[in-house]
Amino acid sequence: MIKGSSVDPGVIDLLGLLAYAELGSFFRLADDAVLAPSLRTRGELAGLAAMEQQHYSLLRDHLVGFGVDPEEAMTPFVRPLDAWHERTEPQSWLESLVKTYVGDGIAGDFYCKLAELADPETKALVEKVLAETGRAEFVAGQVRAALAKEPKLAGRLSLWARRLVGEALSQAQTVAVERPKLAALLAREAEENEEPTGLGDLAAVSRMFASLTEGHLARLSAMGLSE
Amino acid sequence: MIKGSSVDPGVIDLLGLLAYAELGSFFRLADDAVLAPSLRTRGELAGLAAMEQQHYSLLRDHLVGFGVDPEEAMTPFVRPLDAWHERTEPQSWLESLVKTYVGDGIAGDFYCKLAELADPETKALVEKVLAETGRAEFVAGQVRAALAKEPKLAGRLSLWARRLVGEALSQAQTVAVERPKLAALLAREAEENEEPTGLGDLAAVSRMFASLTEGHLARLSAMGLSE
Repeated sequence: MIKGSSVDPGVIDLLGLLAYAELGSFFRLADDAVLAPSLRTRGELAGLAAMEQQHYSLLRDHLVGFGVDPEEAMTPFVRPLDAWHERTEPQSWLESLVKTYVGDGIAGDFYCKLAELADPETKALVEKVLAETGRAEFVAGQVRAALAKEPKLAGRLSLWARRLVGEALSQAQTVAVERPKLAALLAREAEENEEPTGLGDLAAVSRMFASLTEGHLARLSAMGLSE
Repeated sequence: MIKGSSVDPGVIDLLGLLAYAELGSFFRLADDAVLAPSLRTRGELAGLAAMEQQHYSLLRDHLVGFGVDPEEAMTPFVRPLDAWHERTEPQSWLESLVKTYVGDGIAGDFYCKLAELADPETKALVEKVLAETGRAEFVAGQVRAALAKEPKLAGRLSLWARRLVGEALSQAQTVAVERPKLAALLAREAEENEEPTGLGDLAAVSRMFASLTEGHLARLSAMGLSE
């Protein structure tokens, strides 16, 4: 295993971010159980949450393997991720589903970035995690089915999805300023493919945010929602 | 696999009770995360909760294998188990640990009863679940270590443990009245070993409660607490 000293600090940051994102999702899903419409759905929710815990555990072990203190790697992301959850607390089961889909989608984009940029062992970890997140289509299907029954929900849920991504981008902006090495890592590919603008990393990060927003729009339409 | 019709309804009840107990523990542990003293402990708590979810899932699948509707089997136990959790909400990390130990201990006693009374496939399931609950010694050790540092905590935690088991027996009494077939099953062994008293199942159930209380006392002293 590659030791921490030889690993890009941005990769460590990205692993720490994703590890805490998975742990935060675990607790958030468990919290949302009160919104579940049935005992069976509560049980399914527990199953989804347990999968987040497994991913957290894989990422944490991976950090330990790099000789890195995993809690130290996660700490910078606790406040922004907790803030995102606090500002986007679902008030209904459908809002919770949309949040799961949007949050998993953004996490998936970050996992893909990680796979592009990191060592083969980290790539293999990412593939393992992403192979298991086959629930996206299930969640999108549930939202589409609810919209087919009650089309008037679309407006409110579209607003909700916009708020979810808006709050995420706002937290991400703070993280990008506080963690320049992570920002540089995430911006690298964008920089390579475009003419330098002289605006530095923040401009590149903005372009990366634009690409995340694009992914978000694709996910909205997969759920039957509009911008 | 044996079909539901040929399975003792008391065994189905016991499986339903334990399945919902595991699901309830999952959500309770996730809830208690706010009490965890560190990010690392929060992560460990998520791991314990995920194990409860796995046991829930095993028990639920086992009920499905019996041709039984698993949610129907769990439903009679939702109210009493939720009531137990509501009446015993931990106010500190140590209270949460003591509750985990006491609750797991009682569940363990019920699992052992299930193994004594059920078919070989159910016995194998119970052995699998019990083999994984090796955390009891870890939790008891944590409580003992905290008491060694602050011996004055012992009185309050002993009271807390007494309340936990008192509330559990009170809920169990209700369940025994409402589910006579489960009561009969749990009382069977006690009946076989003793002279009939003419008081019927409730007296036998009381004797079973006495044996559960004995187990509880043993667990108290394992944690360094007194009656």
